[in-house]
Amino acid sequence: MIIIYNEILTDIKPTSSQRDRIIKFSDNLMKIILDYANSLNLDVECKLVGSMAKKTSLKSKADIDIFMTFPLDYSEEKLKEYGLLLGEYCINEVGGKAEKRYASHPYMTGLIEEFEIDFVPCYRINDSSQLKSAVDRTILHTDYILSHMSDKQADEVLLLKKFMSSINTYGANYKVSGFSGYLCELLILEYDNFENTLKNASNWRIGQEIDLENYGTCKNFKDPLIAIDPTDKNRNVAAALTMQKFSEFIVASRNYLNNPSQDYFKDKLVKTTKEALMDEFKARNTTCFMLSFNVPPLPTDVIYPQVNKTTKSLEKISNSHNFNVLNKKYYITGDNRAHIILEYEISQLPNIKLHQGPLISDARNSENFMKKYPDCFVKDKKWAVLRKRPYTNAGKLIDDMLKKENMHMLKLGKNVKEELLKEYKLENIMDYLASVDEREYMEIYTFLHPNFLLNR
Amino acid sequence: MIIIYNEILTDIKPTSSQRDRIIKFSDNLMKIILDYANSLNLDVECKLVGSMAKKTSLKSKADIDIFMTFPLDYSEEKLKEYGLLLGEYCINEVGGKAEKRYASHPYMTGLIEEFEIDFVPCYRINDSSQLKSAVDRTILHTDYILSHMSDKQADEVLLLKKFMSSINTYGANYKVSGFSGYLCELLILEYDNFENTLKNASNWRIGQEIDLENYGTCKNFKDPLIAIDPTDKNRNVAAALTMQKFSEFIVASRNYLNNPSQDYFKDKLVKTTKEALMDEFKARNTTCFMLSFNVPPLPTDVIYPQVNKTTKSLEKISNSHNFNVLNKKYYITGDNRAHIILEYEISQLPNIKLHQGPLISDARNSENFMKKYPDCFVKDKKWAVLRKRPYTNAGKLIDDMLKKENMHMLKLGKNVKEELLKEYKLENIMDYLASVDEREYMEIYTFLHPNFLLNR
Repeated sequence: MIIIYNEILTDIKPTSSQRDRIIKFSDNLMKIILDYANSLNLDVECKLVGSMAKKTSLKSKADIDIFMTFPLDYSEEKLKEYGLLLGEYCINEVGGKAEKRYASHPYMTGLIEEFEIDFVPCYRINDSSQLKSAVDRTILHTDYILSHMSDKQADEVLLLKKFMSSINTYGANYKVSGFSGYLCELLILEYDNFENTLKNASNWRIGQEIDLENYGTCKNFKDPLIAIDPTDKNRNVAAALTMQKFSEFIVASRNYLNNPSQDYFKDKLVKTTKEALMDEFKARNTTCFMLSFNVPPLPTDVIYPQVNKTTKSLEKISNSHNFNVLNKKYYITGDNRAHIILEYEISQLPNIKLHQGPLISDARNSENFMKKYPDCFVKDKKWAVLRKRPYTNAGKLIDDMLKKENMHMLKLGKNVKEELLKEYKLENIMDYLASVDEREYMEIYTFLHPNFLLNR
Repeated sequence: MIIIYNEILTDIKPTSSQRDRIIKFSDNLMKIILDYANSLNLDVECKLVGSMAKKTSLKSKADIDIFMTFPLDYSEEKLKEYGLLLGEYCINEVGGKAEKRYASHPYMTGLIEEFEIDFVPCYRINDSSQLKSAVDRTILHTDYILSHMSDKQADEVLLLKKFMSSINTYGANYKVSGFSGYLCELLILEYDNFENTLKNASNWRIGQEIDLENYGTCKNFKDPLIAIDPTDKNRNVAAALTMQKFSEFIVASRNYLNNPSQDYFKDKLVKTTKEALMDEFKARNTTCFMLSFNVPPLPTDVIYPQVNKTTKSLEKISNSHNFNVLNKKYYITGDNRAHIILEYEISQLPNIKLHQGPLISDARNSENFMKKYPDCFVKDKKWAVLRKRPYTNAGKLIDDMLKKENMHMLKLGKNVKEELLKEYKLENIMDYLASVDEREYMEIYTFLHPNFLLNR
């Protein structure tokens, strides 16, 4: 099948009039800020950064990033104070809705017309040696892409981002742990276009190196993908990319090249029913639990790591009690409720377990072991004893671990812990599915079919 | 507690009149053979060998070994023929009951009065370089012990043999796989007396070396215990000793020295009931099967290895299907019926199992794997797929494997296979116990309490 990329671009690329409007709109906002800053005698410059500036912004995501740069001799406190002040002033001035947010430091977000605009204060730097905060890089990245990328390549970035997005590998945030926008741009700079990127990705090895400026610093990193930041030789742009998403992109690339389809640039929808999902679980006849609890409305990168940590901790404690976790998953629904699925290969065990002791030839430790376990016995060259299991049922274990007095045995994260103390629900997946919201079908379907999004 | 070893010896050592009678009795038998051999013009000498000759024979086991030695230039056929002929003649002459038996070569056994006498043909050799058959060594061993061991030491051997016997580590046969009589004698030659042997054994390490003639050949062996044969520097007398029995003897030695008791020289009897045994299995709530089948009345060293092999094979195939065997045991009862106990930690599994595939980065194998398993998915850096398990229940697996068409997947041994094809019974241990013979209590009790015999 021949893919007509221009057709796809028509769908995903902002039109020039849309773009002109945004540029004009941002210019106006920046002028408001500069005028107000002048009236306060503040040394500030404004700059449109991010994908909007780089022409790599998808139509559906018209976010505007306006960075306010201050001289390096301003204190961090002053920087934050002026940043919030100027941002809020500007948003109010044009009748938007202002909201303070936090990343590495606080910034102001405004909803103005249909746009979401971030007003971020940062230092005015020329290279990475002057970095004072994480956001300062954004300026360097924008400048690098603007000076190295052609408009044609920017379009290829759009294709790549859309592809990544619909196979769910796009985004360096904690929810996806995939490829950042900047990483997509670097891939296009390296491989020139979308198709060639996929062709190369098809043959990637673990530890794949991309070093546009030939810094020779790849060897300092141990990650699935090492993409040296052209603006900082000591940074791997792909550091947040997990092995899972690295692998998924490789597989989807191969799938696409084997059998290209414009469907790869569209969201894939799941067609299933509650009954079909139940039947699939029934056919596996594993023991599968759903743990649900509320999460506070905090940013993704605050809550997701905590829920992930909780999931891993529950898996770890299960395995340590010999309840084999076959598969696990977590997701957070729009009603701020976290869901953890734990599927067990073994959820029921006998009352006893074999516990190995010291070598028979180790006389001192043998004596201690015999004292501790009068029922111990010789098993080849070592001592052994059949000990009573603290838990013979996985569900009972999880339920017990979520009790206040046992919670210290889990790693949960502050907010998750607070919520679990208030309320949680631990159900067999069948009971959960009996009243599941249709909007969760996709999450549960992809739990059962993890590669669902990787092909069309 | 002070142990009065003389008291024990009174119980276990043949009296001098008993001994005199046996010696006189054997001399008479040897004279009959020699007279007959002379009449046939055969060059044969007779020799009382084994523990009776060495004065290391326990009262309860008055077996007499008479070896008939032939010159090295006799063919093996002749040797066997004359051996059987002379043995049978002698037994018939004194009105005993003759029976042909097989070890490395056939020999004649006679039941005469209360004695069991083996008439074994062998070559007349001076040292191990002349060995032609395995039994030829016996002469060398007898000569070595007779020329190196005092009567006092022979008594110490009796104590050690009796101790070993009552803790079930005595015997190099396949049933026990423990310490041979000759090995016990070498231990006393090395450590001089019973108590000192136990003191030393308490501190044995794996690979313990005993080299009475300082041959320096221990390094050629990798066994729990290496006891170089004083009559053959290239032979480890303890080669048949398993790690299990090596360890058990160490543990029993420590137990004895910590708290000596004359009870260690008596058989320990188990006091239990059918109900108590059932309760113990119930408390473990494992899944435990008893497989029973007939075995032909063949020598121990023919049948035991086969039943052992069968047990190991059933364990292996169980584990390969992820049914964890927690504990296993086999025994053969007086009615020539073999019993295999298999206790499972996991006997029930879901319909699916996780099967790992090639690395994602391995493009060629990835393609094959995807073709073979269309439902496969990405799991970190590798492919994975959930495959249907051939067996989800351990009992069903065992039952199926014992079907004629599947038996080739097991390692059974010829005789066991024949019997299994005719008949077997696979029961839950509870069902088995419901009608178990009282004489099996000990075997089942020691399955539950494997160290039972190692202390008093």
